[in-house]
Order: sequence, then structure tokens, then C-alpha cells
Amino acid sequence: MGERQPVVDELGSRWPRYEEAVLGYRHYWYPVLESRKLRKRPHPLTLLGEKIVLVRDGGKVYALNDRCLHRGIPLSMGRREFPGSITCCYHGWTYDLASGEVVAALTDGPDSAVCGRPGLRVRTYPVEERAGLIWIYVGDEPRLPVEEDIPESLLRPDAVVEPMVDLRDGNWRYAMENAVDDAHAKCLHRYNLWFFFTRLPGYGTGARMTPTDDGKWLRRVSTPEFRPADYPGLGKWPKYGFWRWRGRRVKADKGTGSNILGGACLPGIFSVGHENWEDFQIFVPVDEDRHLMLQVSVRHTRGLGALLWRLRYWTYIRLIHHIMFNRWEDGRVVPVMSEPEHLFRPDMAIVHWRQWCHENARRSPAEAASVRPAELEAG
Amino acid sequence: MGERQPVVDELGSRWPRYEEAVLGYRHYWYPVLESRKLRKRPHPLTLLGEKIVLVRDGGKVYALNDRCLHRGIPLSMGRREFPGSITCCYHGWTYDLASGEVVAALTDGPDSAVCGRPGLRVRTYPVEERAGLIWIYVGDEPRLPVEEDIPESLLRPDAVVEPMVDLRDGNWRYAMENAVDDAHAKCLHRYNLWFFFTRLPGYGTGARMTPTDDGKWLRRVSTPEFRPADYPGLGKWPKYGFWRWRGRRVKADKGTGSNILGGACLPGIFSVGHENWEDFQIFVPVDEDRHLMLQVSVRHTRGLGALLWRLRYWTYIRLIHHIMFNRWEDGRVVPVMSEPEHLFRPDMAIVHWRQWCHENARRSPAEAASVRPAELEAG
Amino acid sequence: MGERQPVVDELGSRWPRYEEAVLGYRHYWYPVLESRKLRKRPHPLTLLGEKIVLVRDGGKVYALNDRCLHRGIPLSMGRREFPGSITCCYHGWTYDLASGEVVAALTDGPDSAVCGRPGLRVRTYPVEERAGLIWIYVGDEPRLPVEEDIPESLLRPDAVVEPMVDLRDGNWRYAMENAVDDAHAKCLHRYNLWFFFTRLPGYGTGARMTPTDDGKWLRRVSTPEFRPADYPGLGKWPKYGFWRWRGRRVKADKGTGSNILGGACLPGIFSVGHENWEDFQIFVPVDEDRHLMLQVSVRHTRGLGALLWRLRYWTYIRLIHHIMFNRWEDGRVVPVMSEPEHLFRPDMAIVHWRQWCHENARRSPAEAASVRPAELEAG
Repeated sequence: MGERQPVVDELGSRWPRYEEAVLGYRHYWYPVLESRKLRKRPHPLTLLGEKIVLVRDGGKVYALNDRCLHRGIPLSMGRREFPGSITCCYHGWTYDLASGEVVAALTDGPDSAVCGRPGLRVRTYPVEERAGLIWIYVGDEPRLPVEEDIPESLLRPDAVVEPMVDLRDGNWRYAMENAVDDAHAKCLHRYNLWFFFTRLPGYGTGARMTPTDDGKWLRRVSTPEFRPADYPGLGKWPKYGFWRWRGRRVKADKGTGSNILGGACLPGIFSVGHENWEDFQIFVPVDEDRHLMLQVSVRHTRGLGALLWRLRYWTYIRLIHHIMFNRWEDGRVVPVMSEPEHLFRPDMAIVHWRQWCHENARRSPAEAASVRPAELEAG
Repeated sequence: MGERQPVVDELGSRWPRYEEAVLGYRHYWYPVLESRKLRKRPHPLTLLGEKIVLVRDGGKVYALNDRCLHRGIPLSMGRREFPGSITCCYHGWTYDLASGEVVAALTDGPDSAVCGRPGLRVRTYPVEERAGLIWIYVGDEPRLPVEEDIPESLLRPDAVVEPMVDLRDGNWRYAMENAVDDAHAKCLHRYNLWFFFTRLPGYGTGARMTPTDDGKWLRRVSTPEFRPADYPGLGKWPKYGFWRWRGRRVKADKGTGSNILGGACLPGIFSVGHENWEDFQIFVPVDEDRHLMLQVSVRHTRGLGALLWRLRYWTYIRLIHHIMFNRWEDGRVVPVMSEPEHLFRPDMAIVHWRQWCHENARRSPAEAASVRPAELEAG
Repeated sequence: MGERQPVVDELGSRWPRYEEAVLGYRHYWYPVLESRKLRKRPHPLTLLGEKIVLVRDGGKVYALNDRCLHRGIPLSMGRREFPGSITCCYHGWTYDLASGEVVAALTDGPDSAVCGRPGLRVRTYPVEERAGLIWIYVGDEPRLPVEEDIPESLLRPDAVVEPMVDLRDGNWRYAMENAVDDAHAKCLHRYNLWFFFTRLPGYGTGARMTPTDDGKWLRRVSTPEFRPADYPGLGKWPKYGFWRWRGRRVKADKGTGSNILGGACLPGIFSVGHENWEDFQIFVPVDEDRHLMLQVSVRHTRGLGALLWRLRYWTYIRLIHHIMFNRWEDGRVVPVMSEPEHLFRPDMAIVHWRQWCHENARRSPAEAASVRPAELEAG
């Protein structure tokens, strides 16, 4: 019985690196915006608690701390007076987009002593564009290449990617745990239009997560039970409508081979496989109480196939799956989750994810060097 | 002079049980909602700082702590999957409405170890329906019957009751003191439509409260003065319009016999007598800064009389008395009352009410057993 | 280089009397409202963190602490029952407008012991009306006459004054520093309609402030540079549109004679000179995060000249200068200014203003007597 019932109330003491990650894990690349949405106007955002402004210049994207050194005015209110730089709207302090250095203080003339003054630079962040998204690196150097933190499937040359970005209430960990959690779909999403003709299992058994061979993903495994069960003292459940009996069966994720359908990956990516397309849900910490949810749908195809795929995405996937399913239904529960908790058997997947984060979340080079193996085991 | 002027600035030290009752007094029944407003949909509310969900099932009403034990989702967002229980919308944890015990965790199958696990139950609250209202008991057991906390007048078989419930800003004690206070009506409500043809006294003398013979109510007593008085250096006041001179005189409450017109009762009920109907104002603590005000109007009649009374209530009593008078006028001052205070002669009624609360507010059985008479006197 | 670059990061320790003035300086007269806007209805406001109600009675204006002593209800919700007094709406406590004493508690009758009770009075504030504005004195007695704190120009018999009052976000010191600061206009306001045909300098040199002969004003001095300059690695700036080349040149303020154009004065007045009219910007502390900005425009003229001046003011000055220029553009940056700061050469004017405040802000008679010259120098 004890084995079957993972009520884990003393979680905090077990996996401190997960408990402490209120603002997420540093030393990762995070996607923050659709590439096509960053045009001439600077774009302000908050990432892992830090204020950042995105600027597109000469086709390239730059990210700087969104605060002028002079009096604290956000640089996102600034103007683009010269190529390669951004100018604060207030007094014309002008920052090199690549280095963050002050290259001019316009209203002080060309000989201003502010320029080139050591220590007078705003923090810059490495930025890359991949898969139609802008990715920012938050953490110490040396950094890994951005490809290291992007699902391979999104990087394939024949990937046709459709992203959607939501700013949502709730800590990022609640949102990611909601994605990792297989069980809630059987209840919260049961009456969703997406599953209208689907025979959704009532419960699953043996929920757990196991690492993939390459050690990058945690694959979710459980065995679905489609037959209505008899709950003692209550009755049969689920009560399928007749139109569901012959419908498609939603399978729980199987742990077969190297596929990563139904898998989780640091720093907060969840992959859901569909028949011939894949959906990545990426949870990006904004501050303690908010996160970005990116729903990135991808199909590997070309030419007419790409056109048909986009048509299908915009016809119903975006509305029914991304908006009605995830934005409306998950978006109602994630902001109201709270401690204390009492976990149950299907939460074993969440427990494995927490442990995985605690043990595998990337460390800065400095930290990594100072962590001794004994500590890791004791931790 | 000292006797005439109850300036009571050191109140806190005198009646600590009143000062401490920021969230109200426990071990009482509180009315929270009109019976007819609770239908299929669960109803969330806050009472004495506690989150509660009301559920009607099979004609009976149940009250549970509004928080699923699993991840903290409000049960008021839940569904009614089986009779006699409520099911959390998130993972299908199902609670017995009467006991609060977990009877199923649907997405974990019928053999879930969560069911029947000792200690895994949400708090339930005793609930009763009387006089068209839903009453919840907040406090320790053994409890008194609900009739003990309902004015007798509302329980009579010929009582025709019309309730109205408002959620208002301000601590419940300010609201109840405003009701106990006779004097403010002569100023704040002087120009109200309700009193348009009424000759309202300018002031009263001898304000005080005295217990009724049965020891349940504090009856308000004072002698009204209808003649305009000459205020030194200012002039005559009140200035009655000519149309008021022949009007009905509003009498201050007399302390005659066992009637409770103009009386206060724990935990926060005030009764105002009118010619042939009675108005109960009941103040229910929500949290530190909010309270419910219930205005419960009752007339003892039957048949056609009941019909006429309801007609009268909906024609003008509700609008002019309950909405314009109490909601608009009292609702403006109660939220802006603040400390420190300087009480004056008419506040003797409030002072008596505070003392009454300090001395008579119900204690839990455990507390009651441990309080020695000496402490009560010293307190 | 050090001389040219006034990066003043350790400001707080240098001029503590400026750092501490979060709520402004006491012992000054402050303008708070246009005279014509105070009619029958009492007007509530906050000044240097204190809640005040303005009342006009018999042509004269009075200011009292906006809180009834009885239960804390704002007197601004009160009624005018008798001339020379204000009556709280709740129980009729009536206060003498001039002294703040309780002269009646109406609902307690004419013999209420509340009247004349020592210590029972609300605080009153000296008030004067000058130049179409209501001025309140906040501070200790003996006080200076109100004329001491009003720019002479506004008091001249031929002064035709047009005021505009805004309640704005941001601490008053940021707002006043924004006015003192000459440089930001060259950048923030460059594309404003007000300067459309104007050739605005790109920068200035030698920014500083020097006291006027009478020791009341700090005059701003700098030398404007109208030619586009070549900023290393960036290019020429500013880029004048062709229509600006022949336009009027906005001159920086010159330190010639006794004029106070472009001058600052305690407790927070800035004067901007235009061709034949003058604009006073007065910044009045409300609380830590808000201030009043008064834009008081004046021209010295009579008869038809006055009419034409008012026509001009209402045709475009108010809209383009006061609303579009100051309310919209300055109103965007003042609320988002923050610490830490890195000052640059043009900020020398601000540095001089801070120092001036630290050294010259008025002290109460008691403070003034206890300050020894040695302390002043050490400070």
C-alpha cells in the first residue's frame, strides 16, 4: 500500500533545488516571443525576474537590461536614432546594442565623458532566432549553443512551426507540473470539444517517468484503463456518451524506443505527440506569480503539405486545442493551485520530474566545479 | 460632567474580547445566503475568514472547506458527478458532502489508496435552513441548536420573511455599531426619502442599553427631543420643512416590557421595530475588512395579508429603506470609520454593546470550562 | 576629466536634508487649487502626506484636517448646517472653520459636553488666496506672509494669470528635477508640436545654477550648441528637418542681470520665460508617490491685451504646451524614474539644486534656533 501511494508531504526538504527555483533555472536558453512579432518597436518583457528589452536591428535581435543607467527610464521607451544602438528617450544616452556600452550621451555633446567610462554599460543577453522564436540566454558564461536547449524536432529543415505565446498567472512550476500530469486531462478536459468524439480513459496505472537513452528527456509512462470502473458506494465512471463508444481512443504515453512523445525536458518543456504533428508546451518563468506558456506546434512536411498543415492549424487546432483546451481550462486551475498538497498515485510523474530537476538542472560553470559528488548524493 | 460624557479612549484595555474579535465570534450560527439562491451550482463564500463552499444536494444543504486537499483547487469549481458528493474539477477527488471524507479519486481508479485514508478529509460545517436563509455554524462542538441563534420572530409559523443580502466593505464591528447607534439616524439619514414626511428628533437623552429579562437582547433606550433646540453661537436645529411639522414622529426605543424593538443580540443582530413589521439587520464577519449585511424584513400574517405585505415590501420598503437608506447612506460611512475615536454621550449605547460582547460572547466548551469567575471579573 | 564629469553617486550622504524630503519641506505656503474651483462643496486633498479639507465660507477659504474626531469620517463628506462651521455628516459634530474647535455635537443636544472640551479640536491650516490660487501653509508658527512664497511676477496688479492643476504620479523631487533639467528638452521634447518650427539645440555646455542677487532664486545657465555635431562612430545629430533651419532658436537661459527666466525657487517652483509671458511650474508634494503640478501662465497686461492673452492661452498654449508637452511627455518619464542613478555633465544644474535645497530649505523657528553654524558647514 505504501508503495502505491506516493503521498509526499515533505517534498521541500527532499529536493531543495526544485523548491528554490521560484524564478526558474538559470544557464538556459528561453523562448520569449514569436520572431515575426518583433519589428521596429522595442519590446519589453520580464524573464526570470529580470527586465529586458528586445530590439531588432539590421535583421538581428538584441537583448539588453531595460533600464537606462542615467535615471532609470526603460530603454523600451527609447528611439532608434542610429543603427546598431538604442537611444534613451529622456536625455539621449545611447547604448551599443551588442555590448551595452554607452556610445553617446547626445544632450551632452560628442565629447561627453560618459562614453567609454569603465563600468558604465547595461547588461546584455545572448539572443538567437530559431524555429520562428526568439531565444534569450539567462545565465553565466561560457554558455552552451542555443540548439542544446531546443527540441531537435523544431530544428529539422522540414519543420513547419506554428507558435502561440500567452502570458499567464501562476508560478511556472505549477504550469509545468500541470503539463507533466497525465491524470488531470481525464477529468478537467473530459468535456472539452477536442475530446468530443474521443473515448478518454477514466484512469491510468503505473504512472511514472523514465529518462530517455540520451538522458535529455523524461518520458511519461502509464497504462490507460478505458472501461468504466465501479467506484465503491458511488457508481460507474466515466459515463461515456454513446457517440464516444466508437471513437478514437486516446492512448497514454508508452515508453517505447527513443520517441519523446509525452516527455519533459529542462528547463520547462513538455512534448505531446499527436498523429502526425507534435505540440511543445514551453513554460518560461516571468516572475514569482507569472509565466509565459508557449504552445509550439510542428509538423515535418514540405510544399503543399506545409500549406495544408497551416490551414489545419488555423482552422481548428489553435482555437480548440490551444485556446479552449489549454488557455481556458488549464488557465483556470494553474493560478489557484497552492500549498499544502497531498499527492496521489498518478502524481508519481510529477514527483519524478521534481527529482529530475533537483538532480539535473544545469549549474553555472563555477557552481559545477565546486559541487562534489558526495554533496549531490546527499542532496 | 464626567458622568454625562462617556469619552472612552482606553477601550481596548477594557474589553479585550471585543477588541480581539476582528473576525467575529466563533461558536455561533451565521446566516449567509437566501435559500432560494442556492441551486445546482456550488456557491463559494468567506465566513469569519474561512473559505467555504455551499452545495445543495437532494434538497439538503452542505458546507465544506472550499479547497481540495490534493492541490488546493477550490471545490466550488467542481462538478456533481455522484449524488451525495462533490468532485474536484481538476483530478476528480470526490468528497462526501456530509463527512468531508475522500470517497474517490476518479483518475486514480476505484482502488485508490487516497480513499479512507485517515486524516484525509476536508472540514465540514453544520448547516441549517430557516426563515428562508442558510445558516452555517462556525465553532467547536457540542453546538447549540440553530434556533438558539435566530430571533424568535423569524421562526414563528406565520412569519412572512423577505431577506436581502449585501457584501459590504468595512469591519463587521463598525457596521454593527452603526446599527446599535441611534444618534446617527438623526443626522446622516435626516434627508432620506424614508423620513420625508417624518418629524425626526434632533437629539435624544439618556441613551443606554439594558438587558431584556431573558438575558438574550440588549434593548436600546433613550428619550427623543423633537423641538428644535438653540445651539449656542450657531442657531436653531433641526430646521424642519413645513411638511414635516404634522408628520409622524419617529419615537426612540422605549424600554417597555419584553419587546425587543431597537435591540441588539450576539453575535451581531439588530432588530428595528416598525408599525406592523420588523426589520432585522444581521452583520456577518467575512474577513477583516468586509462583512455581509442581511436585512431581513418580517411580518406576521397569513393569506391575503402575506400577499399585501410582500407587495408593500417590493413596492417601496426594499428600495427606499434597504437600498437608499442602508446600502447607500450607511454604506458610505461604515468603510471609512477608523481609530482613534472620541466617543460622546449618545455612544453610551455602543459602549454598553461592547461591554456586553466582552462579557457574554459565547465561549467554546473547552474555554468555558477553563474560565474561572475571578478572571471574568478581572477581565 | 573629473571636473567635466559630475557623476555623483554618493548623493545621499552629501545632502541629507534633500534625501529626507520625501514628503517635501515644511514651513512653506503651497498652492493646491484654482480659486474658482472651490465653491459650495468641501474639497478634499492630500498635502505633504496630510489629509486636508478646503471649505469656502462667506467668501473666505478655510482648511482643516479632514477627519472627524468622533469616528474618523472625512469632514469633506460633511454638510454646511451653520455659517462659519462644517458639520460631520455622521452625527453632526460641528467644527468652527477658523479654530477647528467643536462648537456643537448636534445629535447630543445643545448642552453636549463635547463642546469646548480642551484638546478636542481638529488641526487647522492657514489659507490665503492669491493669483487665482488657494495657498495652504504647512508648518510651524510663526509663519512668513504668503507673499514671501509666491513669485513676485504673479502678484503684480497687471498680472493676468491662467492656472492649470494636475495630480500626477511620481515623487515631487523627480518632477522638480525634471523641470530644473535643461537637457532632456533637447531629446524628450524634440519632436513635440510646440517645437515644430523651432531649431532646438542638440546640447549645451557649462550647465550650472547660480543664485540671484536677492538669494531667492537659482538661475540656470548654459550655452546652447545649435550646429549638428559628429558623434564618433554614430553620425551627425540632431538631424533638423529643412523647415527647422530658418526657425526660431530656443535659447538656453543666460545669466544676465536679475531676471529669473529659467530659475528654481524653494519649495519647488520653476520659472520658464517666454517672449512676452512667463510660465511657472510648481511642484507640490502629495504623498511619497504623487505630486501636484501647477502650470501657472502669466502675462502683464491690461484691457484688450488681457483678452488677447487669454484667447492665446486657451487657443493653443494650454493644449500644446501644458497638455501635450508637459502632461503627456514629462508625465511619462517622471513616474518611472528610479535609483540608482549615474549623473552626467548637464545634471550639474540638478546637483546645484539639491545642494541649494539642503542648505537653504526653511527650518522651523525651533530648528533654526538649535542649528549651529558649524553643523551647517559640516552637513
